[in-house]
Amino acid sequence: MADHLYYRDYLALDTILSAQHPRSRQQGKAAHDEMLFITVHQVYELWFKQALYELDSIITIVQQPYVPEHEVATALFRLERIGEIFRLAIAQFDLLETMTPLDFLAFRDLLHPASGFQSLQFRLLEIRLGLDDETRVLKGFEQSLDERDRAELQAARSQPTLFGAVQAWLERMPFLEVGAYRFWEAYRGAVIRMFERERRAVLEHPALTDEEKHRKLQQIHVNESAFHALFEPERYEELLRRRQRRLSHRATLAALFIMLYRDYPLLQLPFRFLDALIRLDHRFSLWRYRHAVMVNRMIGRKVGTGGSSGYEYLLQTTLQQHIFQDLSSLASYLLPPAEIPPLPAEIENRLRFAVEVHG
Amino acid sequence: MADHLYYRDYLALDTILSAQHPRSRQQGKAAHDEMLFITVHQVYELWFKQALYELDSIITIVQQPYVPEHEVATALFRLERIGEIFRLAIAQFDLLETMTPLDFLAFRDLLHPASGFQSLQFRLLEIRLGLDDETRVLKGFEQSLDERDRAELQAARSQPTLFGAVQAWLERMPFLEVGAYRFWEAYRGAVIRMFERERRAVLEHPALTDEEKHRKLQQIHVNESAFHALFEPERYEELLRRRQRRLSHRATLAALFIMLYRDYPLLQLPFRFLDALIRLDHRFSLWRYRHAVMVNRMIGRKVGTGGSSGYEYLLQTTLQQHIFQDLSSLASYLLPPAEIPPLPAEIENRLRFAVEVHG
Amino acid sequence: MADHLYYRDYLALDTILSAQHPRSRQQGKAAHDEMLFITVHQVYELWFKQALYELDSIITIVQQPYVPEHEVATALFRLERIGEIFRLAIAQFDLLETMTPLDFLAFRDLLHPASGFQSLQFRLLEIRLGLDDETRVLKGFEQSLDERDRAELQAARSQPTLFGAVQAWLERMPFLEVGAYRFWEAYRGAVIRMFERERRAVLEHPALTDEEKHRKLQQIHVNESAFHALFEPERYEELLRRRQRRLSHRATLAALFIMLYRDYPLLQLPFRFLDALIRLDHRFSLWRYRHAVMVNRMIGRKVGTGGSSGYEYLLQTTLQQHIFQDLSSLASYLLPPAEIPPLPAEIENRLRFAVEVHG
Amino acid sequence: MADHLYYRDYLALDTILSAQHPRSRQQGKAAHDEMLFITVHQVYELWFKQALYELDSIITIVQQPYVPEHEVATALFRLERIGEIFRLAIAQFDLLETMTPLDFLAFRDLLHPASGFQSLQFRLLEIRLGLDDETRVLKGFEQSLDERDRAELQAARSQPTLFGAVQAWLERMPFLEVGAYRFWEAYRGAVIRMFERERRAVLEHPALTDEEKHRKLQQIHVNESAFHALFEPERYEELLRRRQRRLSHRATLAALFIMLYRDYPLLQLPFRFLDALIRLDHRFSLWRYRHAVMVNRMIGRKVGTGGSSGYEYLLQTTLQQHIFQDLSSLASYLLPPAEIPPLPAEIENRLRFAVEVHG
Repeated sequence: MADHLYYRDYLALDTILSAQHPRSRQQGKAAHDEMLFITVHQVYELWFKQALYELDSIITIVQQPYVPEHEVATALFRLERIGEIFRLAIAQFDLLETMTPLDFLAFRDLLHPASGFQSLQFRLLEIRLGLDDETRVLKGFEQSLDERDRAELQAARSQPTLFGAVQAWLERMPFLEVGAYRFWEAYRGAVIRMFERERRAVLEHPALTDEEKHRKLQQIHVNESAFHALFEPERYEELLRRRQRRLSHRATLAALFIMLYRDYPLLQLPFRFLDALIRLDHRFSLWRYRHAVMVNRMIGRKVGTGGSSGYEYLLQTTLQQHIFQDLSSLASYLLPPAEIPPLPAEIENRLRFAVEVHG
Repeated sequence: MADHLYYRDYLALDTILSAQHPRSRQQGKAAHDEMLFITVHQVYELWFKQALYELDSIITIVQQPYVPEHEVATALFRLERIGEIFRLAIAQFDLLETMTPLDFLAFRDLLHPASGFQSLQFRLLEIRLGLDDETRVLKGFEQSLDERDRAELQAARSQPTLFGAVQAWLERMPFLEVGAYRFWEAYRGAVIRMFERERRAVLEHPALTDEEKHRKLQQIHVNESAFHALFEPERYEELLRRRQRRLSHRATLAALFIMLYRDYPLLQLPFRFLDALIRLDHRFSLWRYRHAVMVNRMIGRKVGTGGSSGYEYLLQTTLQQHIFQDLSSLASYLLPPAEIPPLPAEIENRLRFAVEVHG
Repeated sequence: MADHLYYRDYLALDTILSAQHPRSRQQGKAAHDEMLFITVHQVYELWFKQALYELDSIITIVQQPYVPEHEVATALFRLERIGEIFRLAIAQFDLLETMTPLDFLAFRDLLHPASGFQSLQFRLLEIRLGLDDETRVLKGFEQSLDERDRAELQAARSQPTLFGAVQAWLERMPFLEVGAYRFWEAYRGAVIRMFERERRAVLEHPALTDEEKHRKLQQIHVNESAFHALFEPERYEELLRRRQRRLSHRATLAALFIMLYRDYPLLQLPFRFLDALIRLDHRFSLWRYRHAVMVNRMIGRKVGTGGSSGYEYLLQTTLQQHIFQDLSSLASYLLPPAEIPPLPAEIENRLRFAVEVHG
Repeated sequence: MADHLYYRDYLALDTILSAQHPRSRQQGKAAHDEMLFITVHQVYELWFKQALYELDSIITIVQQPYVPEHEVATALFRLERIGEIFRLAIAQFDLLETMTPLDFLAFRDLLHPASGFQSLQFRLLEIRLGLDDETRVLKGFEQSLDERDRAELQAARSQPTLFGAVQAWLERMPFLEVGAYRFWEAYRGAVIRMFERERRAVLEHPALTDEEKHRKLQQIHVNESAFHALFEPERYEELLRRRQRRLSHRATLAALFIMLYRDYPLLQLPFRFLDALIRLDHRFSLWRYRHAVMVNRMIGRKVGTGGSSGYEYLLQTTLQQHIFQDLSSLASYLLPPAEIPPLPAEIENRLRFAVEVHG
């Protein structure tokens, strides 16, 4: 009966559970732990596939010309699901690390030149999230791939990314300029007032020595100058050119607006969505860090299989790869509640229209 | 070149990653979350296969007529690896629960009559651990299997179990009767002295009312009588017959001996091994509990797919299925350090021979 | 200088870190692991205090006569924070279980009659969540408390509960009856049609034997009759009286409405809030289960310190204590997307008003 | 009655639970999330105290002139307990990150100049583990402490460290030179043979181009030269002087011996102990990494409270601080099972004496 579904068939278990082929056994030197090694990596790949699947649907939602609010919610919850997937993927290193370097050595040479770095799907995830190639040092990685995988990577590069979709979505946000109101002007005024106040507090402080005052004023100066790039489009463009920023000026201001005024009903979900992007970014970096540490554990500082340069290389890429770093960095540009400039009534009304769920 | 191993081929990724076939998509009613449902279950099955693989090797070690100490260590570390696998498998419910009951409903009926209860491998794990059929209420489960799966279950029933191997290993332990020394006699004496002291403490307590004394004495009586089964083989046999105990009298005494005298070098690893059995048992029960709660979340108290009776059934089986409950229950029969009877010198010497690693 | 805050003072570390007083050390029988026992329990109590703090703020939000949408969001995120707290509290058992029963035995008797069951704050959490006294078997627990703690419990009983606040909030939902529309009528119609279709599918199935048909029809009957309580207020009241339901009829229908029509913008957050209640409930039950298993590990099936009856008792209470079971059970009453009756235009409009975030 | 212990008193709950003093509330600007901030940090400090307590007992065990085998087991299990503590401490960041940067901003300035970097106990942990001051960039940190804390740090510097105790314990290992046997000679011979074989395999490979051969031979050369430092004490001393190594030559060889011959009964526990050191080291670094990422999340790249230089600084220290890096690096110096030189019979016998647990 065609529609009589059997658990084993539904899950294709005959296929899944017969796909573990330890090399050490094939070559007559059965190493017990190779099975764990294979299983753990297969599970990683299943998680990566699932993450790509969710990511694809999120990008589809966010790149719509108009994103209905409840779809922002859907995108948010799927983003958090990817977060849960990576929570598991990170915890999975604890399992892999029940294998000691010596256990690994018993079959490591049989894998040559295959390597963990050749996970195409992890790289696809990075590309679809929006990690740009210049940022990532991956020459070695791509050379190690076969043609088919390289073609798939190439194809992914022309697909929309989450970074791009989010940037465009932010740029479309209509509240930055309404009537005579200019968000960046109001914000700049508040920033200047804030630093003025900080400066005065230092100068008038009775218990500080001159040297301490000097040091503190310098620190205020450093902090303040960081804000200026936000006010001066040319300076911001320069940062983009020098790759110290990736997110466009307008998108950055929109993200800042959402963060500052997140308590308005209409900005709740967008704010949570931005926060989820930052947290997911961090979770990815955590996966990379654990991966680097695991490689350090397994092969010390030796040159890795797959021709990769091992631990130091991995650590370096870990640190470079916060895709949504510009969102994360906005934490430096927030203002304490009391310093946030009030919005004009017109905007307030538009942001508030969803005040009441119940009657 | 035959030995040029490629990551994708080594892990059979073409096979693994093309084995997800959502029914809802096939039937033209694509439900987004079915992919998660499939992936999560496939990962469960990969973990179960890995756990079976480790379990098999543990049983092979423990059922040797003589188990070298370093192999006890190996068995212990593999047991802890299964524990790590189930730690992940338990955490995995957090991911599955990002799917709401409504998301599930969108494809649930398409799965009929397949059901999570039909995981052959989970049942194999239970059988190989040593869960006996009378204990488990599984009529419905087996009827729902096809012939091939049923045959595999039947075959597993004639294989050695961890429970059986551990029991035989304990029964072989030589220290219970050496020369004139009888462990159970020494232990019984200590127990009687301990309860006598407890009784006296209550009777002589100046601040207790008569009623309180009465209540406390009754409690001591209840606790004490629980010990008697351990001293009287006939009573113990009766408990075995009534299925209130599963582990043989001799194996139970040996386990108790190991727990009481675990600080002797030779008993360190055996003690840790017994403790790992108990902890693994508890982790299995935790998996079952989370599974029960997840089913409750997904289908409420409705009759489940696969004809299973759902939440209440699952809870019931959860509670019945501590395979090493008799080891766990020994916690009730331990004595505080000061009450433990000293060992005769002859045994002490044999247990102590491995005093010094260095120099 | 008054405002020069020092880390140690801010966190009151002199107080916090000098509050561990192992009894075994005081009595000259230092047991290494008692420190772990104390620390772990103190951390539990800190988590419970934090959970009570969040819970209190959630109740304050939900019991407002009108709950602004963005405050539903705040309540939701705080609920999820309590979930995170309990995720940690549950994982904490893994740490406690690095202590073996024998390690515990070395100081257990010194604690008499103190007991883990005497956590006032955990009981306060249960009360503020809305666990009613009749449900919980806690005679023994309250008798073991001193007067001050008992008074605090008593005071908590007159405070608003999350259960009560949620029930009232649901009852206020305005969409169940609008104009001529009656939600329960539309829903009942859909349910009847659905079962009719299921029945016909069985009867007309060419491959089923008569016996199979009979069995399946019976099952449909059982499932269907479960729905009827929802349609007939008198029957529902009877269930409330018999304590098989706790949530009022109107609140139950409102929750069902939210679940069925959750894709409308205005119902997104309420739906997520209900789902978070269910998940938190499950996490609490998980804490209880792990607690029960830990007690089993530590003291076997002996009568516990504090006069509590141990493992079986704990398990029993674990199973009884789903506070939001009625919400969870609604999973049984959901309809597949295609069966959900459409809403009248008037309601759709009111639920849809928040269509577009970006201009 | 003096010995009637009450749960609340035993755990000093009146003290513990009244030690949260949010500054924002004191100053009339109550910020909801400050309570979470305080609680989470207090729990960290409780965990750190517990970890110091365990660490202290481990050092006491390991620095004994003779370490009985069962005490190696105790040290191992306590090391793993610290690992569990840090597993929780790491997961705790997930809870802290339910607070958004904006929530933090609402009270951040009130904490000035207190800072998370001022955890004396975390620094004590690092010192007692054996992190040396030159390695760690902590000028700023110590300057920010008050006199009492600085004195405590200073005192800790003269206490024995885990690193020192482990090094001395390894140096005492007697098997490196027995009769005519010299471990390092046997090992060097095996290494030379191994690389010779690798070189020949490349040269005789029919499918490699000359360029590929050249590249591979170079890589082999790099790998091989890394081994030489191990054979030449002068070169090794040079590495110590340049701080590229910290563990003494003899201790390093002993650790290598243990790893290579870990399957001998007597080396089982020492091997597991070394592996646990490496894993704990990695877990500490993971804590630091998550801390760095959390700081990045909370304050962006702004200069932190407490005058610390924030994210980049934290990342840098994260990478520098593997205390047992030299043990971890030994993974590079292991040999595949077939290449490990056999031991002389005399040593084999001494390592094997504990062959049989059960008579």
